[in-house]
Amino acid sequence: MSTQAIGQRLVELCNAGDPDRAARELYASDIVSIEANGTPEMPARMQGMAAIEQKSAWWNANNDVHRMAAEGPFIGNRPDQFAVRFEIDMTPKGGTRTKMIEVGLYTVRGDKIAEEAFLSSA
Amino acid sequence: MSTQAIGQRLVELCNAGDPDRAARELYASDIVSIEANGTPEMPARMQGMAAIEQKSAWWNANNDVHRMAAEGPFIGNRPDQFAVRFEIDMTPKGGTRTKMIEVGLYTVRGDKIAEEAFLSSA
Repeated sequence: MSTQAIGQRLVELCNAGDPDRAARELYASDIVSIEANGTPEMPARMQGMAAIEQKSAWWNANNDVHRMAAEGPFIGNRPDQFAVRFEIDMTPKGGTRTKMIEVGLYTVRGDKIAEEAFLSSA
Repeated sequence: MSTQAIGQRLVELCNAGDPDRAARELYASDIVSIEANGTPEMPARMQGMAAIEQKSAWWNANNDVHRMAAEGPFIGNRPDQFAVRFEIDMTPKGGTRTKMIEVGLYTVRGDKIAEEAFLSSA
């Protein structure tokens, strides 16, 4: 799969509300996941599908997602990289509804995503 | 200036319709500029303020910008990097009005932007 095709599939599955399926289909088994700001539940750097699934399970258990919109993929001069803009309408459990906007920067190796890094607005 | 402050200033000046001022204020003299797809007028990789100003002059002469909106800066775990989403409502000279959406990925060195790389949607 080309970088373009991998990015398109990721966007498609996220817009269908199934980012976990995107991870299962498209991520390398040793995927590296980098958050803008680490927390005890979501360390800044995690590696491997098991760790990423655990992070995702924690996040899903602690946030209600009303809608997720993915835009992209954006592709530049590097053939192994693409970006996606995410807009997530969500309510943290016990918190107030908010709109989170992030940019995900993805690195492809072989025909799998080897790294995801999230950049967030302040 | 911090990466956050540089990114905020870039977004502010672009939203004020003055990306050229952002370049003069914030770019290192040996700035590297990378386009998603090179053309004879806008090679994929250019270096130095003189080359960037020439590219910008060519672009401004060949496109009418009705409105430019910059969103961000988005900052991740790397302290030297930020991203900005651009939406440009424009008409290429002799062409039809279009909306161009891009992600700019910026690398900061010292307190200047050392590299800009643009990622575009297909």
